[in-house]
Amino acid sequence: MSAPTETAPTPSHRGQGQSIDLQGKIALLQGHWQPRVVAEMNDYQFKVVKIAGEFLWHQHRDTDETFIVLDGQLRIDLRDASGDIRAIHLQAGQMAVIPQGIEHKPFAQEEVQLLLIEPRGVANTGDGEAGARTVANGLWI
Amino acid sequence: MSAPTETAPTPSHRGQGQSIDLQGKIALLQGHWQPRVVAEMNDYQFKVVKIAGEFLWHQHRDTDETFIVLDGQLRIDLRDASGDIRAIHLQAGQMAVIPQGIEHKPFAQEEVQLLLIEPRGVANTGDGEAGARTVANGLWI
Repeated sequence: MSAPTETAPTPSHRGQGQSIDLQGKIALLQGHWQPRVVAEMNDYQFKVVKIAGEFLWHQHRDTDETFIVLDGQLRIDLRDASGDIRAIHLQAGQMAVIPQGIEHKPFAQEEVQLLLIEPRGVANTGDGEAGARTVANGLWI
Repeated sequence: MSAPTETAPTPSHRGQGQSIDLQGKIALLQGHWQPRVVAEMNDYQFKVVKIAGEFLWHQHRDTDETFIVLDGQLRIDLRDASGDIRAIHLQAGQMAVIPQGIEHKPFAQEEVQLLLIEPRGVANTGDGEAGARTVANGLWI
């Protein structure tokens, strides 16, 4: 899969018009917390990622974000404006949409395999300060 | 799940901030070709649907459309501008993004369970003439 170019990438360059095997893409991933794009739908990207352990609190001020669990047990902590924290739990075949502006922190006791859906260009660490957990955006697999 | 209202539905009314069990939603469906919304992400909707048999040729002139197969074997025929037809085949755990403006026709020899992702308000029969296969939009489950 080539990366989309700046000038009108073709549908096939955007992962479109073809069957995409999500487990096959997951198998190509190296390491955890390294999302890779597998397809685009309009201005949105589908990304596969393997995670293990705890991410950092972050939010996406301008967009919702979708998690679909392909394998494993995922916990997402959500913190509301008053600081109260609640957790949602997802396993394979379950999904959650995190509303824009809501602080959240994914946690995986053991490896979790995910399909993420969000607009092109969204940073994995949200609008917090970029750091060691921030990865380059728009990498394909 | 209540339907979103016209006036700023809350995230929970949009299926957000909670775990959504896709097979559990599928189990609530009555009949084939009756997509039902389970969650929204920004202006997009996630819909579950069971299909069996052949749909009609249609296209969506203004948007891409995503199929994620939850169970079964799906064939999608794609027809290009010259009339040439090719088929893509998907099974559980596989997805495809149909590019905007490309005529397509889903086919399921036996029942297929799907998660569809597309912008709010897209007609299931695309921009063709509404008919017996056209269903009301924006119904939740």
